[in-house]
Amino acid sequence: MARCRICRQKASIFIPHHRLPLCDEHFVSWFENYLRRTIQKFRMFSREARILVAVSGGKDSLVLWKALVKLGYAADGVFIDLGIEDFSFLSRRVVEDFAATLGRKLYVVSLQKELGFGIPALKRRTKKYCSLCGSIKRYFLNWATRKFHYEVLLTGHNLDDEASALLGNVINWSIKYLGRKYPVLPAHSGFPQKAKPLCRFTSFEIQEYAKRQKIKYIKESCPLSSEAKRLVFAEMMDQLEEQMPGTKLRFYLDYLRRAFPIFQEKVEDFLDHKLVTCARCGEPAISSPCFICRLKEEYQGA
Amino acid sequence: MARCRICRQKASIFIPHHRLPLCDEHFVSWFENYLRRTIQKFRMFSREARILVAVSGGKDSLVLWKALVKLGYAADGVFIDLGIEDFSFLSRRVVEDFAATLGRKLYVVSLQKELGFGIPALKRRTKKYCSLCGSIKRYFLNWATRKFHYEVLLTGHNLDDEASALLGNVINWSIKYLGRKYPVLPAHSGFPQKAKPLCRFTSFEIQEYAKRQKIKYIKESCPLSSEAKRLVFAEMMDQLEEQMPGTKLRFYLDYLRRAFPIFQEKVEDFLDHKLVTCARCGEPAISSPCFICRLKEEYQGA
Repeated sequence: MARCRICRQKASIFIPHHRLPLCDEHFVSWFENYLRRTIQKFRMFSREARILVAVSGGKDSLVLWKALVKLGYAADGVFIDLGIEDFSFLSRRVVEDFAATLGRKLYVVSLQKELGFGIPALKRRTKKYCSLCGSIKRYFLNWATRKFHYEVLLTGHNLDDEASALLGNVINWSIKYLGRKYPVLPAHSGFPQKAKPLCRFTSFEIQEYAKRQKIKYIKESCPLSSEAKRLVFAEMMDQLEEQMPGTKLRFYLDYLRRAFPIFQEKVEDFLDHKLVTCARCGEPAISSPCFICRLKEEYQGA
Repeated sequence: MARCRICRQKASIFIPHHRLPLCDEHFVSWFENYLRRTIQKFRMFSREARILVAVSGGKDSLVLWKALVKLGYAADGVFIDLGIEDFSFLSRRVVEDFAATLGRKLYVVSLQKELGFGIPALKRRTKKYCSLCGSIKRYFLNWATRKFHYEVLLTGHNLDDEASALLGNVINWSIKYLGRKYPVLPAHSGFPQKAKPLCRFTSFEIQEYAKRQKIKYIKESCPLSSEAKRLVFAEMMDQLEEQMPGTKLRFYLDYLRRAFPIFQEKVEDFLDHKLVTCARCGEPAISSPCFICRLKEEYQGA
């Protein structure tokens, strides 16, 4: 192993994207600095903003939360309890313990309480439960951000997530998604401002930060998830990265710089034009009653 | 093997993209019909157009030429002799024999004669000989089309070529290429109209047509070529196709329908604005003297 670029001590990690050998201490400070610079570069939020981090119990969201707090941001957490037996129970425990250690507030939104049922009940009724779960989570994250008076909602999406999702959107030429795929989206039509501050970090870098910060996180992915298709794209990106190191970051950043503005023009106001306010819950939606209110009704007493 | 969709006899081929089992006879007629429909769909050229097919001796260009002639198009051929020893010699023989059997005119453009040197001399001087060879071929194909008074220049690019090149352009977000990647390009600023009538056919389908038409073609690829990078994308597309059949065609056609128009707007007139006429050879170029005239000068007596 080479020597740390900063202190010339023995390096403990090499970051291929940046051709950077670092020791434990300077890897941690590099990580936090690069996070701060990412937040500034994309003008994600100010130093004083009231920030809510969507935490699942996985490494990405916990690392994001911890690093933000270390950087001095006023970041609290929100956890959506999906009601998936052991998985949700354990995740919730991990997140609650983490919040306590961090000394920050944590909001827990239980689907059972808010919706009347959890994801397993959904799975018994429809094959599309996986994408529906995504929509439900987004709904309650937006809802919680507004309800608890936060200005920005953050998620832990990392470079691997973003690059493989981008590849999927490109393979399907989903112009609608391509025109909205940006690491910061301003508040609009009742939705809070959203940002993905880990968008320039690989899964590997985040894992190594978690290790050095002794963060306990849930390693298992959701036992109900069926993400075969997404995995195809993730594996393709990994292969490309292996054969042409740096491709993943370049593919994502060049997209943001060169292609996103072109697509954005095409879909601008697309959402705004179609959005209404749900007459029952008051959330922005594409129809009223919104899909959550319709779900509630449909599953009443089910 | 299933039964032929048309005659219910035993099928000899199954075309996954179209979920179509066919016998030998109906595969050949399907191929030719689909070619005719591709030409019409993209308004590539009229029944009466004077057509020049760029033939290399490989399966794609010979299949294209033969099928066009069978469909009644007035298609002649042009072969660029690159001067690559055995490879060019054999390719030229194959193409000349083929033209004779077809009863159509063949033009042979020899780099040795027109330029003063072949590709091997280029390889001794520069590492970029592979992409330079591509530019040289394009120059002489344009040149021959005009010199011999043809209206449209055709190349044998197939779906695999187009889809993997498209993936490469996307991974690099080469907006300039993405805005010009279309199977027919109208004549402009001294360039002839160009088309790729095989753009909806897979390499496999073309090979099977060649087999059934007993076309003798060169199976070897150029002994000087180094297309490792292009192969990466070709293999990725093949993997995607295997895991999600139909992806290749959908990726390419959705691009043409949904994404190309968006990119095209951005690069429209890009070329025209920058083009001049070479004061020496009279061809359109980005500078005068053009790169071919400069190459000639540079290599004089080399």
